[in-house]
Amino acid sequence: MKATVTRRAHFNAAHRLYRKDWPFERNEAVFGKCNSPNFHGHNYELLVSVTGEIDPETGYVMDIKELADIIEQEVEVPFDHKNLNLDVPEFADLNPTAENISVVIYDKIRKRIPQSMALEVTLYETPRNSVTYRGE
Amino acid sequence: MKATVTRRAHFNAAHRLYRKDWPFERNEAVFGKCNSPNFHGHNYELLVSVTGEIDPETGYVMDIKELADIIEQEVEVPFDHKNLNLDVPEFADLNPTAENISVVIYDKIRKRIPQSMALEVTLYETPRNSVTYRGE
Amino acid sequence: MKATVTRRAHFNAAHRLYRKDWPFERNEAVFGKCNSPNFHGHNYELLVSVTGEIDPETGYVMDIKELADIIEQEVEVPFDHKNLNLDVPEFADLNPTAENISVVIYDKIRKRIPQSMALEVTLYETPRNSVTYRGE
Amino acid sequence: MKATVTRRAHFNAAHRLYRKDWPFERNEAVFGKCNSPNFHGHNYELLVSVTGEIDPETGYVMDIKELADIIEQEVEVPFDHKNLNLDVPEFADLNPTAENISVVIYDKIRKRIPQSMALEVTLYETPRNSVTYRGE
Amino acid sequence: MKATVTRRAHFNAAHRLYRKDWPFERNEAVFGKCNSPNFHGHNYELLVSVTGEIDPETGYVMDIKELADIIEQEVEVPFDHKNLNLDVPEFADLNPTAENISVVIYDKIRKRIPQSMALEVTLYETPRNSVTYRGE
Amino acid sequence: MKATVTRRAHFNAAHRLYRKDWPFERNEAVFGKCNSPNFHGHNYELLVSVTGEIDPETGYVMDIKELADIIEQEVEVPFDHKNLNLDVPEFADLNPTAENISVVIYDKIRKRIPQSMALEVTLYETPRNSVTYRGE
Repeated sequence: MKATVTRRAHFNAAHRLYRKDWPFERNEAVFGKCNSPNFHGHNYELLVSVTGEIDPETGYVMDIKELADIIEQEVEVPFDHKNLNLDVPEFADLNPTAENISVVIYDKIRKRIPQSMALEVTLYETPRNSVTYRGE
Repeated sequence: MKATVTRRAHFNAAHRLYRKDWPFERNEAVFGKCNSPNFHGHNYELLVSVTGEIDPETGYVMDIKELADIIEQEVEVPFDHKNLNLDVPEFADLNPTAENISVVIYDKIRKRIPQSMALEVTLYETPRNSVTYRGE
Repeated sequence: MKATVTRRAHFNAAHRLYRKDWPFERNEAVFGKCNSPNFHGHNYELLVSVTGEIDPETGYVMDIKELADIIEQEVEVPFDHKNLNLDVPEFADLNPTAENISVVIYDKIRKRIPQSMALEVTLYETPRNSVTYRGE
Repeated sequence: MKATVTRRAHFNAAHRLYRKDWPFERNEAVFGKCNSPNFHGHNYELLVSVTGEIDPETGYVMDIKELADIIEQEVEVPFDHKNLNLDVPEFADLNPTAENISVVIYDKIRKRIPQSMALEVTLYETPRNSVTYRGE
Repeated sequence: MKATVTRRAHFNAAHRLYRKDWPFERNEAVFGKCNSPNFHGHNYELLVSVTGEIDPETGYVMDIKELADIIEQEVEVPFDHKNLNLDVPEFADLNPTAENISVVIYDKIRKRIPQSMALEVTLYETPRNSVTYRGE
Repeated sequence: MKATVTRRAHFNAAHRLYRKDWPFERNEAVFGKCNSPNFHGHNYELLVSVTGEIDPETGYVMDIKELADIIEQEVEVPFDHKNLNLDVPEFADLNPTAENISVVIYDKIRKRIPQSMALEVTLYETPRNSVTYRGE
């Protein structure tokens, strides 16, 4: 029997959407107010879902406390109260859109989850905008 | 790399569930208090999800501002503060159940999204009742 | 020791904001799209708060089940799945703004709560708009 | 045309995570504070989703009132205000993890839903932890 | 200038509403299903509000991190994943209604907050039922 | 009859908590990770409440659309997608704590609301931390 366990976490961060190799006008045309030069920010809410067999001995797919610890180490500690563009190496040359942040989070957590289990990451940039990435 | 971007929107509308070609008693038996003759209403909350490749240049599946504009034009302007049965042509002869409203919204938005992208619509009629339609 | 107990309830209803004794143009100028002639609707969320002494014997200000029953009888049964303008006698000649609905609900519940207890009603017309009335 | 209808429900229950056939120390090591001997508890929030063809006559996949009644009979009546370990027969010898509770709920509701329809159960143990089971 | 800072916290606990000095029938009549003998439980959500002068030097009424630490020490550590009736000394002879739990929490936190500041505690037993206590 | 109308709004912004006239070590000791030099950010959720007489002619305390417009002009346009420290003149020499942001918002909106009406501002910096200011 397979089930999906989902853990909710959150981090607060500043970011700016732009490409360093584009002139300001092009960034403005494509990214609008998200290109505001001095950064803006969000309370990112994160859902991490792991799908796998229910261990008949424990009744767990995986210990959700362990999943929470992985999220804390891989995401909350390095991202919370940070500027994604300036403080997080993964975004030094990668535009921190919700899509790209989701991929970075997925890749960091993927290494910590057994390959037999599927992983899905949903990131709410605001209560109205979210992105889901499944490693496909 | 494929990801799903989701935008949340909302509209407030009146409706009544019934078929004009059925007698009142049959409508009452099937639709219960939703058949109340003078209409009732809801704050509909709408989630629209688009799945596609992440553009490596922008880091976007699609600009969520553009998705928000499409939802506003196709759904919020024609549906908000309206009576679905009386004011919205699509429901002149179609019972405005949450299922049918979802299909109508899907069909209207589908025309505005590239065919290479998948579309999913979830409509909350109340915080406790929702419907998801994927064009299948 | 005094405490406040609050119960959450909800009802779905249609309404239209307008005065019968005003011409359409004036209603349109004052009430905008809320004056849409065929009605629109909401999922109203209702918070009812009662403040009184904690009974040292039971540890209750009042049995919240009893409060829930009062709300059901006074508000949910007569308002849910109804058209406030056409189906609810209190609004036959009273514009069903969130303010006026709150006053009507307060007055109906006030009769059922001991005078030694204070009453407060908060009505969410949408998740973004609400009104609080305390009988002042 | 296929759609998914989802109903939200809830029940409040006590539980303890442990295996009777393990010594306390092993339960403590595996289940941590969830093994607290005198039980703890949760407001479980439950989402039940049914996927099937939209009936062209009614515009319903199924009457969500009927789905709500099934959930009430199969889950809310037997689980609400109960101790899952002591009061609910299904957990007499089954550790009431969110995974196992989801499977039990799925199996109870599955019998009441036509086989032509797919079923999915999501159980929130807390607003931060949830499990989804699809009968796979 | 005075402001109110509010911190949200939560704990999961089992409880039973009854008086040891009453016969079962009387407890059943007064507390209904909350008197279920083997306990039930809740995800309690807690709001703690402190009102005081804004310190012109820091811009804080009080450091909300400090308030969070007080709540953790006084409430989360002793109450979380516990049986309120059996594991928490304050309820050995006090019926753990939401009202009484609020008073106990207020009294524990009150000792840690300067007397110049006002304190208010709101406890959600469920998303639909809450109690507010202000030490009056 | 007096009632309180409340409008919810939101803006996304970056900020850093620190005093320019303090050495980094003192800012670090007092503001912790909120002093992160490259800024972090939040989705600020804002509740603005106006208390006044219900106009017997319209049934409104004030037109909530007008209140929404005032919030948009005074708060959303100047604060949204901005760096509060660098882009918003009011915080050039004022530490943008939630308390100070609430006071600034209150003062801006206060000028636009008739003096006969009371005003209250609640600002959620995160879903777990908020501040209320009433001009006292």
